[in-house]
Amino acid sequence: MIAEIIAVGSEMLTPYRVDTNSLALTAELNKLGVAVAFKTILGDDLQQLTDAARIALRRADIVLFSGGLGPTEDDLTREAVAAVLGVGMTRDASIIESLRERFRKRGIEIRENNLKQADVIDGAEVLPNANGTAPGQWIDTTFEDKRRFLVLLPGPPKELTALYTDQVEQRLRAVVPQVHIAIASLRMAVVPESEVDARTAPIYQQYPDVQTTILSTQGEIQLHFQCSKPTLAEAEARVREVQSRCAQEMGDVVFSENDESPEEVVLHTLAERGLTLAVAESCTGGLLGQRLTSVTGSSGSFLGGAIVYANAMKTALADVPAETIHEHGAVSEEVARALAEGIRRRTTAAYGIGITGIAGPGGATETKPVGLVYVALADAERTECLTLNLSGDRERVRWFASQYALMLLRKHLL
Amino acid sequence: MIAEIIAVGSEMLTPYRVDTNSLALTAELNKLGVAVAFKTILGDDLQQLTDAARIALRRADIVLFSGGLGPTEDDLTREAVAAVLGVGMTRDASIIESLRERFRKRGIEIRENNLKQADVIDGAEVLPNANGTAPGQWIDTTFEDKRRFLVLLPGPPKELTALYTDQVEQRLRAVVPQVHIAIASLRMAVVPESEVDARTAPIYQQYPDVQTTILSTQGEIQLHFQCSKPTLAEAEARVREVQSRCAQEMGDVVFSENDESPEEVVLHTLAERGLTLAVAESCTGGLLGQRLTSVTGSSGSFLGGAIVYANAMKTALADVPAETIHEHGAVSEEVARALAEGIRRRTTAAYGIGITGIAGPGGATETKPVGLVYVALADAERTECLTLNLSGDRERVRWFASQYALMLLRKHLL
Repeated sequence: MIAEIIAVGSEMLTPYRVDTNSLALTAELNKLGVAVAFKTILGDDLQQLTDAARIALRRADIVLFSGGLGPTEDDLTREAVAAVLGVGMTRDASIIESLRERFRKRGIEIRENNLKQADVIDGAEVLPNANGTAPGQWIDTTFEDKRRFLVLLPGPPKELTALYTDQVEQRLRAVVPQVHIAIASLRMAVVPESEVDARTAPIYQQYPDVQTTILSTQGEIQLHFQCSKPTLAEAEARVREVQSRCAQEMGDVVFSENDESPEEVVLHTLAERGLTLAVAESCTGGLLGQRLTSVTGSSGSFLGGAIVYANAMKTALADVPAETIHEHGAVSEEVARALAEGIRRRTTAAYGIGITGIAGPGGATETKPVGLVYVALADAERTECLTLNLSGDRERVRWFASQYALMLLRKHLL
Repeated sequence: MIAEIIAVGSEMLTPYRVDTNSLALTAELNKLGVAVAFKTILGDDLQQLTDAARIALRRADIVLFSGGLGPTEDDLTREAVAAVLGVGMTRDASIIESLRERFRKRGIEIRENNLKQADVIDGAEVLPNANGTAPGQWIDTTFEDKRRFLVLLPGPPKELTALYTDQVEQRLRAVVPQVHIAIASLRMAVVPESEVDARTAPIYQQYPDVQTTILSTQGEIQLHFQCSKPTLAEAEARVREVQSRCAQEMGDVVFSENDESPEEVVLHTLAERGLTLAVAESCTGGLLGQRLTSVTGSSGSFLGGAIVYANAMKTALADVPAETIHEHGAVSEEVARALAEGIRRRTTAAYGIGITGIAGPGGATETKPVGLVYVALADAERTECLTLNLSGDRERVRWFASQYALMLLRKHLL
């Protein structure tokens, strides 16, 4: 069975907003063994929406709509679905009552247009929405001689996901052929996508029953494996096998087989060993600290550190001798090492990380180009320093600098 | 004229990836007065892709494809477009030559499948791609008695945007009816979307010729105005008028009428006045520093600061007296004030910001719930402190804390 997701709303046709509801819906549908084959995004036009619904019903078994269930004139999903199915709508007394109740509680007068949300397409089941005014609708019908399932969901992400989980998942599970899906992933850092693909494709291509997706995000390459089998044990055995063979091939660049982020991997290892970390960041300006503290419970191992953007701060907050900066420049291996060592001493952490570099677009000199970054790691015994020549814009240089810093520490902890 | 954007690639049908190419394309098309009415996202299936191309050619004047121009068997956009137009393809000798040249330079053997990228749809103009191997194609044709323009663009964002700018923009400009578009925006912070809408709708609804979009992103509400008129002066006059009336209505919560971010506004004002800033961050862990240093040239006003995640760091790096922490707790107004004052003194900055709070999900006590955050701002004369009770998850609490900190400083600088 295949699905189409239709996202309704003119804001998604502006330069400012993409449809993200489809990501959560896709993850859920995949769990049932349903692939999403099409996504359509369109605005609040009844004719266009009706035509799009017809196209979707011809090419997909399950059609999910997100959005267009609100109280305004622009909310036309109900009308379009009724039109394409050639049925009417009935205003539902119990929905009206719950709408009135909702407004009463908030002390707001209900307006006539709100009652529109009580319109139920003939033949539809109402899906109560605990988090908003617009209920969803579920339709199991025959369209041009084929059995089709239509699901109307509200656009706000929290309402949509809760409604899917509470109301839709069980209904779909009852009608889609039962399969068991296992998933697994490998996360790798600071390695080119082309290298990962060249080395792992000969392996994963031996598993035609496993769907393999390679994704490249900033400074990270992920392999996702998915397999559907009559039993979960069979599916899991297959994804585990291809995962483990690819992991073996890629070796050290794999930082997680459990879908952990680089910062999670580093923090968990530090916590296991009772070790602590502090950072002194120049060009990353707090990015590494921000990444580490985005992890719940990071306070167990991450002490803090210094943002040493100005040169005087490198001395004042991380004890870099002014003469080191004067002699080698703020962007130098010597300063990176001094930052790592200085912040470690100052905070009494087990590890100190120092980062200094030229994130660009300005700041380059004849000998020091944009993208030159030094990342140093100090422990009680020694200090190690990476010299990086990163390409790309300011954001990319900074992100990769933080990524290399995490990978340097991870390697050290291995 | 209306456009449809078809994004081709199975990765965009997974739970991991959305189409973002359409955002840049939409911004460019809007500048020409062309609205995007439909977006379709689908995978690498020739029949599905051919059908989708047919649907698009029926409902849109301009159809832009992104992706599916690579060298693999899965890259089928050329084949699908040729099929729907009922024409053939010719392998282009000059493209083959430039492909061979490209591979020679990189010292790689060219493989047979790469030559596929030299296939040109009959009647198409080749759009050379300076940044990759897959050239684009431009087709001006008649489909079912209507004039249609098809644009085939490579999927990698940098190749796509460069190719659009260099090759497509001028071709579209020559064929779309000439209009002049003016845009303007208002950016507001720490105000609910519903309040912005309630207060500005009575104004912008008086401008039916101006398309107004309200967007809510984390801690920020944006109003975007767009107007198309026979002359640019007329269009600009209209968007300026509605922008200025809405700005007047919203008052102080508007932080930019020039599409600047909160961090840009604060840094520019500091730079104008020759003032400096330092931060001491506990629960935000570097996020505020990271936001400030994401702005090019921030080193002029932002000195740096301390990430004081552990209590001992609050004392060691920002001189918060241990007894203040002991007496009031790390999450307290007293500690926020001491952080702001301490980091200011330590760094000799004009302003010091201190942030301490409970980002969650753990860490709450009976009297201090998740979301309780103190943000303090100190200058030479006085220290001001905000008490925030933020809702939402860890990421949201941290982001809003940094947003309130920027807004507190901005208000002070007004």
